[in-house]
Amino acid sequence: MDPIEVDNIESIIELIEAASGTRELDLIIRNVQIVNVFTGEIKPGSLGIFKGLIASPEINSEAKAKRIFDGSNLYALPGFIDTHVHIDSTLLTPSALASLITPCGTTAVFADPMEIANVAGMNGVKVFIQSGDDLPYHFYIEVPSRVPSAPGLETTGGELGLAEVRAMLDWDSSISLGEIDPSKIIDRKREYLEKVMQAQAIGKIVNGHTAGLSREKLVAYACARIADDHECITYDEAKERLSLGMCVLVREGSTERNLEALVRGLARENAASDRWMMCTDDKHPDDIASEGHIDYMVRKAISIGLDPIKAIQMATINAAVHFRKEHLLGSLSPGRWADILLARDLHDLHAEFVFFKGELVAEQGRLISENISNPFPEWLLNTVKITRGRTAKDYALEATGQRVNTRVIKIFSDQIVNEEKQAVLMVSDGNVLTAPERDILKLAVVERYGKNGNIGIAFVSGFGLTHGALASSVSHDHHNIVVVGADEASMAGCVKAIERMQGGLVVCNGDEVLAELPLPIGGLLSDQNAGIVIQFLKLMNEAAWSLGCSLPAPFMTLSFISLPTVPELGLTDMGLIDVKEHKIIPPIYTDP
Amino acid sequence: MDPIEVDNIESIIELIEAASGTRELDLIIRNVQIVNVFTGEIKPGSLGIFKGLIASPEINSEAKAKRIFDGSNLYALPGFIDTHVHIDSTLLTPSALASLITPCGTTAVFADPMEIANVAGMNGVKVFIQSGDDLPYHFYIEVPSRVPSAPGLETTGGELGLAEVRAMLDWDSSISLGEIDPSKIIDRKREYLEKVMQAQAIGKIVNGHTAGLSREKLVAYACARIADDHECITYDEAKERLSLGMCVLVREGSTERNLEALVRGLARENAASDRWMMCTDDKHPDDIASEGHIDYMVRKAISIGLDPIKAIQMATINAAVHFRKEHLLGSLSPGRWADILLARDLHDLHAEFVFFKGELVAEQGRLISENISNPFPEWLLNTVKITRGRTAKDYALEATGQRVNTRVIKIFSDQIVNEEKQAVLMVSDGNVLTAPERDILKLAVVERYGKNGNIGIAFVSGFGLTHGALASSVSHDHHNIVVVGADEASMAGCVKAIERMQGGLVVCNGDEVLAELPLPIGGLLSDQNAGIVIQFLKLMNEAAWSLGCSLPAPFMTLSFISLPTVPELGLTDMGLIDVKEHKIIPPIYTDP
Repeated sequence: MDPIEVDNIESIIELIEAASGTRELDLIIRNVQIVNVFTGEIKPGSLGIFKGLIASPEINSEAKAKRIFDGSNLYALPGFIDTHVHIDSTLLTPSALASLITPCGTTAVFADPMEIANVAGMNGVKVFIQSGDDLPYHFYIEVPSRVPSAPGLETTGGELGLAEVRAMLDWDSSISLGEIDPSKIIDRKREYLEKVMQAQAIGKIVNGHTAGLSREKLVAYACARIADDHECITYDEAKERLSLGMCVLVREGSTERNLEALVRGLARENAASDRWMMCTDDKHPDDIASEGHIDYMVRKAISIGLDPIKAIQMATINAAVHFRKEHLLGSLSPGRWADILLARDLHDLHAEFVFFKGELVAEQGRLISENISNPFPEWLLNTVKITRGRTAKDYALEATGQRVNTRVIKIFSDQIVNEEKQAVLMVSDGNVLTAPERDILKLAVVERYGKNGNIGIAFVSGFGLTHGALASSVSHDHHNIVVVGADEASMAGCVKAIERMQGGLVVCNGDEVLAELPLPIGGLLSDQNAGIVIQFLKLMNEAAWSLGCSLPAPFMTLSFISLPTVPELGLTDMGLIDVKEHKIIPPIYTDP
Repeated sequence: MDPIEVDNIESIIELIEAASGTRELDLIIRNVQIVNVFTGEIKPGSLGIFKGLIASPEINSEAKAKRIFDGSNLYALPGFIDTHVHIDSTLLTPSALASLITPCGTTAVFADPMEIANVAGMNGVKVFIQSGDDLPYHFYIEVPSRVPSAPGLETTGGELGLAEVRAMLDWDSSISLGEIDPSKIIDRKREYLEKVMQAQAIGKIVNGHTAGLSREKLVAYACARIADDHECITYDEAKERLSLGMCVLVREGSTERNLEALVRGLARENAASDRWMMCTDDKHPDDIASEGHIDYMVRKAISIGLDPIKAIQMATINAAVHFRKEHLLGSLSPGRWADILLARDLHDLHAEFVFFKGELVAEQGRLISENISNPFPEWLLNTVKITRGRTAKDYALEATGQRVNTRVIKIFSDQIVNEEKQAVLMVSDGNVLTAPERDILKLAVVERYGKNGNIGIAFVSGFGLTHGALASSVSHDHHNIVVVGADEASMAGCVKAIERMQGGLVVCNGDEVLAELPLPIGGLLSDQNAGIVIQFLKLMNEAAWSLGCSLPAPFMTLSFISLPTVPELGLTDMGLIDVKEHKIIPPIYTDP
């Protein structure tokens, strides 16, 4: 991507000529109020653009260009940067995502493709990147540092060892080493430290991930020169991380919404904001469609009292500097990509026009031309290889006697952490039964990479299903099939449907499919456009609710419930996981 | 240098253990007021250090260490960074320089070794770097981008072509591509643009050099994504460069003193200073000894009204971030080098103690142990190879008739620019004579690399010598021997003395040497310590003044007078240079 680096000297030669007035410009955006993110000044002027780059931010009135765009005295500012995002959370391909984020003025995305890497390893990531070749936004990756997340406790389709990570860090499209797990650093795991030092040795930064770390552990983690954190919830946490040399990536996703607390502190103290930037991390397509993307964060920050210039800097140049791309991104300076948004009001900032590499790509909230080419190879469209799980008996949990005391994963609708509870359940024909009337359901994770046919089974409380089952091939971070059901037959129905779709979300009652959303690309992404996916997601939720499910976003909860890295319990294809002890434990207490 | 990067994972593992309290620290600096350059906060505490790195900036009172240093409630701040310096201007080796700058708290130097490169090419730079292996400061180089400075107009000992620059950019000790000449960019010289793009492709920045550029040319120059400029003289110039994406390296050298004007503007507007930093560029050893180094700039900035925290940030973290070394330098964060200075007063900031990589290296203004090893190879100690110039007649300028109208380089004591004047001079025996009574002397540049025996000759006004001659093997940027004299015999005397010394400064009257300072290392650097060099420089100036010289710093003026790149006239071994036309012109008007 961005081949204009060292191999395209002609472009720079011509750019200098265009800036000097000896070569015709491609485009002049006239009559705009140019926001300078370095000085904070706003000056009327015209932007000269050549071959997708800013030639000059101060074109005089005689200059010639192939095209003239009248900016109608709108403000011109650099395109926005999302500094950390799991695109997979949108269920959309990078190209399908454009219709949602490009009209919002997001022109650069630093994506952590951890999900596709868990499914299909380095080759999956490669394909994922290539699918973004014609995007209307810059697409850099944060090289996933922990695939799999819980080695030895889960089966994944792909793995990224040290050799793969080294190779990927060298890619031009790699901008950093992605969110490194604190325990790997604090426990001094050599492989992970080598990844960190490799990134730093070649001039790339290492993104952090410090949710809830104690002060002592934070200091130990910082010893590895971790560059930032996107997990700050309070302003004090943010200051603590800043004081240890980390930048703050303010996060405002669908569920994790940290902007208000953080920016309120920043505004209150009128503190320096040059080491602050913005990210969405995990934001669902319907939420982007309804409220916006980075532009939403900018508006919200300003409404809280942050100076608009500071908010814009956080969304642009601060990110470019931190990720060491300020020579290409984040400002309307000569030589930078002509990623420009035009807006009428800096306090209520909405992009009326968005230019990417000097081309008008969105206007009044709509993408100008959608181009969902899906150059995904066959092998990535056929990743669901099930050995077991098609019949009800595959979900039997064996026990003797009439009743057993079981471990139950108690979930909460608005958190990804859970609690361990106990419940006494009936045994029938040697199988422990669910108790939907007490909201105790079966949860299973079905290995889907054709490697071993594992099925992990446990009990869960909090979904509220009175009958039927839900399943998803999106289940962090291993992305096997996770299924929750009031009965085993419905669970088998769900898994068969997912096998047929080669990935997706499904709601079944017995073998009857009530709703389904195919996600054929690696079992993670739809091949449809954003509008269709959003519509289907709504139908999926309604179908789940019709079965008695009481969660606001059942499939989101489902996709995170199996995580073997979030306390207290996780469930993988290998079984129930005691997260704190990092080991497999039985779902039935052995001493009832 | 700094081998603690990717190849020393053990150090990081142990560092994390030390930070976590499971391994004994090497050093605790107790009882200090720690200045946090990120948050601006100052908090009492203790710094824990292990293997030269900061393990923790908040060691508790029970922690164990091999050594304890009582900080006596002094302020602790990161060591200072000089972001652009020609060490050769001090006439000292990197190791000899330590006695001057280390006690000032300078712990990192980003040096442009352009001079040694002009003398001895890439191998010269390599030796120069290696001589710094045991320095009490970090020594990074800004890879010289223009060696020679004026291709085709001067003979140099070494050249750095594209291949050499590419190779050098890859060195771990290379931090950037050094000050790139605007004309090379604006005139779109492919070789130079390739150097620029190569640096950027491997994640390194490109330093600028924009003295006096018009707005239009500045924009064209910025198209190559030049990262900074150290040539700003006014605050408006600084803002202009900032607005185009360049950082400002405030310069305070011996003659170029820009700090007051720039910082006064910054303080007046209370503007953001995160893209501002400090450099000395060319500062003579006596000036460093008498007033200080970066610490002097910090004190001066504060006395002008800049917030002390901002001044300290400019001298530390801002530089580290801009040069993309913030994971190693510029703050007292975990994992960074333990480069620390302790000071009693932030408003009148003098380093009482200086630690480099966790070792106490200076105390109360004095280096603790001087280590001037001079591992310079024989070939670099024998670089003066003269073919001609040992006799008076080598300095004859032929003419017919009785008198001729000549071009005269009119110099000014406080500027490096000069003016072209005319003078009618007498001819005797076919040789144009000097006219010391009118302050018109002969200036010659004697090729000293044994390549062609060239001698360029012209006339100069402004030195004021009534008799005798001065010469120097330091003459930017080609570093041939430059000699100015009232008579040819004294000029020859000087050149013979320099040949004998294999480089240096000299004052002669006829063959009598009145004073000399040997500079045997490449003809540029002394092998003596700073005290001796400063003492000799004083004697050199006194000897020059005894011959009637009226300049305050005769050898400084002499070393810059031959520059073929500073208007209006230059003089190289090839002859008199019309700088604007970039061509050789005769010293005598052909049509008198």
